[in-house]
Amino acid sequence: MIEPLAQILKENCRLDPARPVLVGVSGGPDSLCLLHVLWQLGYPLVVAHYNHGLRPEAEADAAAVGLAAAGLGLSFVTERGDVRAAAETNRLSIEEAARQKRYQFLFEQARQVSAQAVAVGHTADDQVETVLMHLLRGAGLSGLGGMRYRARLAIWSEEIPLVRPLLGVWREEVERYITEQGLAPVLDESNLDPSFYRNRLRRQLLPYLQAYNPRVKELLWQTASLLQEDEAVLEVAVEAAWMDCLLEKGEGALALAFTPLLGLPTGLQRRVLRRALSCLRPGLRDISYDTVRRALSFLSSPAAGGQIDLADGLRLWREGERVWIAGWSADLPTGGWPAVPDQESRELTAPGRLRLGDGWVLEASILAAVPEPGEAPWRRSEAPDPFSAWLDLDRLALPLQVRARRPGDRFRPLGLGGHSLKLSDYFINAKLPQRARLAWPLVLSAGEIAWLPGFAPGEAFRFTPDTRRVLHLRLSQEAAADRPV
Amino acid sequence: MIEPLAQILKENCRLDPARPVLVGVSGGPDSLCLLHVLWQLGYPLVVAHYNHGLRPEAEADAAAVGLAAAGLGLSFVTERGDVRAAAETNRLSIEEAARQKRYQFLFEQARQVSAQAVAVGHTADDQVETVLMHLLRGAGLSGLGGMRYRARLAIWSEEIPLVRPLLGVWREEVERYITEQGLAPVLDESNLDPSFYRNRLRRQLLPYLQAYNPRVKELLWQTASLLQEDEAVLEVAVEAAWMDCLLEKGEGALALAFTPLLGLPTGLQRRVLRRALSCLRPGLRDISYDTVRRALSFLSSPAAGGQIDLADGLRLWREGERVWIAGWSADLPTGGWPAVPDQESRELTAPGRLRLGDGWVLEASILAAVPEPGEAPWRRSEAPDPFSAWLDLDRLALPLQVRARRPGDRFRPLGLGGHSLKLSDYFINAKLPQRARLAWPLVLSAGEIAWLPGFAPGEAFRFTPDTRRVLHLRLSQEAAADRPV
Repeated sequence: MIEPLAQILKENCRLDPARPVLVGVSGGPDSLCLLHVLWQLGYPLVVAHYNHGLRPEAEADAAAVGLAAAGLGLSFVTERGDVRAAAETNRLSIEEAARQKRYQFLFEQARQVSAQAVAVGHTADDQVETVLMHLLRGAGLSGLGGMRYRARLAIWSEEIPLVRPLLGVWREEVERYITEQGLAPVLDESNLDPSFYRNRLRRQLLPYLQAYNPRVKELLWQTASLLQEDEAVLEVAVEAAWMDCLLEKGEGALALAFTPLLGLPTGLQRRVLRRALSCLRPGLRDISYDTVRRALSFLSSPAAGGQIDLADGLRLWREGERVWIAGWSADLPTGGWPAVPDQESRELTAPGRLRLGDGWVLEASILAAVPEPGEAPWRRSEAPDPFSAWLDLDRLALPLQVRARRPGDRFRPLGLGGHSLKLSDYFINAKLPQRARLAWPLVLSAGEIAWLPGFAPGEAFRFTPDTRRVLHLRLSQEAAADRPV
Repeated sequence: MIEPLAQILKENCRLDPARPVLVGVSGGPDSLCLLHVLWQLGYPLVVAHYNHGLRPEAEADAAAVGLAAAGLGLSFVTERGDVRAAAETNRLSIEEAARQKRYQFLFEQARQVSAQAVAVGHTADDQVETVLMHLLRGAGLSGLGGMRYRARLAIWSEEIPLVRPLLGVWREEVERYITEQGLAPVLDESNLDPSFYRNRLRRQLLPYLQAYNPRVKELLWQTASLLQEDEAVLEVAVEAAWMDCLLEKGEGALALAFTPLLGLPTGLQRRVLRRALSCLRPGLRDISYDTVRRALSFLSSPAAGGQIDLADGLRLWREGERVWIAGWSADLPTGGWPAVPDQESRELTAPGRLRLGDGWVLEASILAAVPEPGEAPWRRSEAPDPFSAWLDLDRLALPLQVRARRPGDRFRPLGLGGHSLKLSDYFINAKLPQRARLAWPLVLSAGEIAWLPGFAPGEAFRFTPDTRRVLHLRLSQEAAADRPV
């Protein structure tokens, strides 16, 4: 057993034989075997035991592990926690609370001794049980791959990995090793308690499945290992897709590129979305099948208006090429949109200049001569600047007003034959993002919208063959360096 | 139910509503429901029923399906086969033999009526059972993904796909549909017989698992669908890897590129190997985990000499950059190696020419003048041509002999201080492929190897400062167009 494990430790766990490893030892056969193997192979070790304080023998177990460590000449750390209290406070099962407290302790200790890794004694049997557990609770590729020889678990540590050198060793082999080496494990009676889900799987479900196929444990282990390899291949593809799709990532919000995302095969779309969610909510453990399915069907429906709720307060919506995922309170990037700084109405004379927020400047100038119809400045360019407008000055009441939208605003845009729309409907049709609408500058004449910068002048103020005096309006953004401080 | 199915038929099964579909109808609720739905949606249909002849009611069932088809105004084909005999002859379970005979019939009929697809009535329940069956028997990603809405099964047809429109419909929904539409299915009693593995899963294992999680069926279905999506992503990566790795494919043999293959993540190595095996043995159904694992560990071991047996008479070995997979009897490409045509010894005079096989020509010429040591022709080029040699003519006994290797041949190559090696050992060290060795031309002088073309001159015949007359030997291959016919 020692020799293959030496290789597993190097190649699969990627441990450096010269740097300390913190070994979590419950005192049961698995962790005692792991401790002994690592010690035999000469790894510098610190033995850590978390006393869950759940059973009368807990103190004796801790003492036994301490003795075992001392017997091997190793340093020993232990702590007693109140798992029952933690379970009640955090509404967790005893099993889950114990797990959380234990790992918290192990990684804390690992940081203190600058360990290269935390090693725990999960065996091939544990692996099979984990795979079955995931299968019964619903899982994808990652969950069915079970535990990894080496894993970085962000919730416990960004730097220190968890390693499981015995993941390919069956409990039977562990027992044989324990006997051969004359080791004296403590009996972890919680393993026998069928009220724990995992123990039910071990004691009841697995023997039941073995009646269908006596080799089922070995086959499930192989399946997990195959799926881990497949997962590794997929991760490369996901990384590439993520790079293609991620447009920006701000505080609590990120934007994905719509067209590249929709162009991915569904398996990658799903993973890019999951990655986006866990990017924003690193603690989020279960991103459900349905959540992702809903998001994908929302995005692929041609309308894709509005937004949908995902998980843990995150929502998703689309703004043109941008697919936003953010919490309600996220401080979203403004997108460089023009905006008035507040709800006040400001005056703009002609000629005149008005500073809005963020370097945006609105300018009004009176043209010296009325252009010939064929020479109209808005006809000069193939792509007219929507942030310039030429209006009939004689139809305007000066000074103009500049303000953000208010409830009830209506707009008669050029080209709709004088038809009046609710401004909110116009914005929706124009696919202007909700966030941009709130502070978008409107230019009004006597209370009627004369120009909606970026979109259209008002029908009533348009340049006609009868126009005698022309007002030119222009909205532009100064380079940051040119702005007044 | 009709509306979502209309979409599934278009998008997942990719059926053309204008082209005929052959529907396999046992007469049970699932296939009767499928038939009725397809009929309602206006697909042109041919109803096909395979009579397994296993039960007393078989004839009545066939008649009932025929009546149902006639009731819908559809044409009907049926055949009665001897499943028991097929099972005995091919040593198959009754269940497996029935499956094979049935599909053979369905695809034969589909070809005859130029159907675009064979449609069968597998339901979501069948999917879950399939996934569990694969899990218990050992499977990877592909098997755990279960059945596909649309699949091309090479064993039945290269062109006509099998479609399973009801794969997302639960048996419960089927029953409801049957009742609502007042359809009268026959009772397929074989479904109730717990001696069939699948029926055991259905009647015993699934209810047992539902005690662990009442949603287990739904979750397993979702898992399968997720894994199918992942498989689709992997297939793209596999296709790219296959293109990178495949060097040549001949009759019963193919060669993969060693370095690109070893550079792939294990998950892709595994799939490229599997693909190679199924390329050579299209019928091969189970390529085991162990077979692939052994092949990979053979290739990654630094020695990688010899060869290993894979499956179904295929073996794998490495020749430099080429990883060969072939059956024992495969006619392997020669690799363009020089070869003598038979076991005869031929004479070569100087000057003289000798034609070997396949356009290879050996030429001997006597140099007019002895080159100055610094001007030696073999020093003129940075990369000397191993198919040219300059020897001391006075040490050679003319005519030279040219022949293939014989048992007991030894060689004293230039540069080993006159040390003599078994020629077979020399070939192994030189990594010359086994196949190339047999007919490789040797040039001998009075029974001793004077030159091993491609490798080295013999030490005894080397050019020295005392050399007075020089024999130049050259082995080259004529372009095919220049060869005598």
